[in-house]
Amino acid sequence: MRELGLKARKAAGVLALASTAQKNAALNAMAKAIRASSNKIIAVNQSDVEAAKKKNLKDSFIDRLTLDADRVEAMAKGLEDIAGLPDPVGTTLSEWTRPNGMKISRVRVPIGVIGIIFESRPNVAADAGALCMKSGNAAILRGGSDGFQSSTLIVEALRQGLEAAGLPAAAIQMAPTTDRASVGEMLSGLGGTIDLIVPRGGKSLVARVQAEARVPVFSHLEGICHVYVDKSANPEMAREIVLNSKLRRTGVCGSAETILIDRAAAKTNLAPIIRTLIDAGCEVRGDAEARAADARVKPAREEDWSTEYLDSIVSLAVVNGVDEAMAHIAKYGSQHTDAIIADDEKTAQKFLSEVDSAIVLHNASTQFADGGEFGFGAEIGIATGKLHARGPVGLEQLATFKYQVRGSGQIRP
Amino acid sequence: MRELGLKARKAAGVLALASTAQKNAALNAMAKAIRASSNKIIAVNQSDVEAAKKKNLKDSFIDRLTLDADRVEAMAKGLEDIAGLPDPVGTTLSEWTRPNGMKISRVRVPIGVIGIIFESRPNVAADAGALCMKSGNAAILRGGSDGFQSSTLIVEALRQGLEAAGLPAAAIQMAPTTDRASVGEMLSGLGGTIDLIVPRGGKSLVARVQAEARVPVFSHLEGICHVYVDKSANPEMAREIVLNSKLRRTGVCGSAETILIDRAAAKTNLAPIIRTLIDAGCEVRGDAEARAADARVKPAREEDWSTEYLDSIVSLAVVNGVDEAMAHIAKYGSQHTDAIIADDEKTAQKFLSEVDSAIVLHNASTQFADGGEFGFGAEIGIATGKLHARGPVGLEQLATFKYQVRGSGQIRP
Repeated sequence: MRELGLKARKAAGVLALASTAQKNAALNAMAKAIRASSNKIIAVNQSDVEAAKKKNLKDSFIDRLTLDADRVEAMAKGLEDIAGLPDPVGTTLSEWTRPNGMKISRVRVPIGVIGIIFESRPNVAADAGALCMKSGNAAILRGGSDGFQSSTLIVEALRQGLEAAGLPAAAIQMAPTTDRASVGEMLSGLGGTIDLIVPRGGKSLVARVQAEARVPVFSHLEGICHVYVDKSANPEMAREIVLNSKLRRTGVCGSAETILIDRAAAKTNLAPIIRTLIDAGCEVRGDAEARAADARVKPAREEDWSTEYLDSIVSLAVVNGVDEAMAHIAKYGSQHTDAIIADDEKTAQKFLSEVDSAIVLHNASTQFADGGEFGFGAEIGIATGKLHARGPVGLEQLATFKYQVRGSGQIRP
Repeated sequence: MRELGLKARKAAGVLALASTAQKNAALNAMAKAIRASSNKIIAVNQSDVEAAKKKNLKDSFIDRLTLDADRVEAMAKGLEDIAGLPDPVGTTLSEWTRPNGMKISRVRVPIGVIGIIFESRPNVAADAGALCMKSGNAAILRGGSDGFQSSTLIVEALRQGLEAAGLPAAAIQMAPTTDRASVGEMLSGLGGTIDLIVPRGGKSLVARVQAEARVPVFSHLEGICHVYVDKSANPEMAREIVLNSKLRRTGVCGSAETILIDRAAAKTNLAPIIRTLIDAGCEVRGDAEARAADARVKPAREEDWSTEYLDSIVSLAVVNGVDEAMAHIAKYGSQHTDAIIADDEKTAQKFLSEVDSAIVLHNASTQFADGGEFGFGAEIGIATGKLHARGPVGLEQLATFKYQVRGSGQIRP
């Protein structure tokens, strides 16, 4: 593993200075190599999937692990899309001149070496490797054991693409082992060679990363996302946004887990929203008022308010206006994504200003919590930490900056 | 300590929404309170200083600990200066509209609760507390034992200022103990209440912070700063900048520790630069060529190239052009601040682009590595990490951002 770090560090030095054209050529060559190995990747993936099935892993897990021709093509297309995105490196973020004549520029530069620890979704290897590379960083990928063979073949194709464009293959490396210790080594920073860790996985991985990491981390905690329906909400819009926030896709981190309804308009909104959810196949767990409004509502226990269901289940409470809604969100939320539905602009602005989450929305679905939907083109994940990256992590967030100072002999008095 | 965290979290909620006028009123009231307690602060500080002297601590340590009327006045003035700086909170950093009509704004917001761990410079309590407060954050200060009485009195004055402006005193708290365990508790995040740790101290503190921190850190490693004198340098400018970079103040992190001289112009630059340094009272430790140029040069050992002297000592080597200079900096530097002296623009641009340090300068002294000199008004330190803050940490770097999304009923297809 240490050797991987040294190789990555060296490759990062080359990549930081690579031109946009060269990086894009590599991405297009990667897509070509992925397509060329499509059959081989699918065959190896079948053996990964069969082994996973023997372990009786969950269907959703098997689905995330599985590749078919469409998914391999989507992966290749994804690489070409990243080639089409603007290069974040080299942009002057701000520039000013000091009274002594020194010109200071804040210029975007790559971070260096990024360690990605992921579970068994093989397409993460392609996405993450390509996003790191386009932003001028070297990547060390440490994938879970169940998708190991598939991910290794994919990374092989990425490396062919790098070499075809004259860039070092070591810019994207796959950890050769899937043992627990290799995660620990990466979290320790591989002897100072890793600048940043991005975990892509479930609760237990994120918990381990938070406990052990000795290097900065873009952490992704749960998305306990709320939709608050204010008394001033348009009832039809409220129903549509609640339904979409919860059920469009239940397995994404931006799906709503708790609906809060303003008591002042409970008569108008409570029963219709519950009915809409239940009719759409969602289990509703509510407080006493919700249960009184619809007998099909199950009782919510205390732990429901802080549960990320990632399923067709939602918790629902009646609150006294925006202040009580914000207090609920502060107590139980995960600072990920929260929405208010309201026609009253002042109330909406209060919510947008005061709720301390990465993304706060007014009259829009929480399912927009996504780098693509934000216009970032692609994302490596959503960060729930507060520093450097917050919310969708796209190419710009995978870069940092430095100050370039141009003088004409200035010394400090 | 846990209780401090909970109080800080609550105060941070209030502070995040405080107006600029209210925060500035608090800063001005703090300055007034510091001036009103000046005699008391100086008296208590004398007892701190006497106790420290009995422990035979170094003169430089005693000097940093000592307060007199001028230094207390400078502290008060510093608070008023911070009141005069622009408020970073609430600024819209960028704004765009998506094809579906959603308007996304990236808005600057406070980080939350910042833990400052410092050693025995009592003025850090005032500076750090005030910078955190102006940027809308609550601060928990944990000061070293030698300055504890002085710092506690200063924090008392800051809290009077907060209360005078109607803000919660808990926005700036001083840890009540100076035991080792209290540092550990802060590094663990005080039960999730601390968002960021800023260490202000020497190597051993920084090392402990890096080993134990469970929350993000703005780390300040050493400043192993280099000045490279290219063959195209104006010899007189080179001498002046080298002299200033090394000797203006030797105890600051931006002072140069190694001078690299291009072999192609060694005849012109080597002996004069060495002579200038030695004549100014600086010990020069050099390689064979440097020693051949001036018999007073002492031999440099391997460890000299990675030593932060913070003293009138400098290491000096002759290199083959900018590439060898950059290789030396990559091997021994600390990614803090490095300068090139050159008239050749292409060589200078290469250095600015390729040296991976927070601050890279062309034809200017490394001693400009300072928030004030950058125009930030004040700084809490220089960050040598790569994420979020890099280089001088001023008010803007003590803030983060969130995304506010304004829709009109958008749901995700």
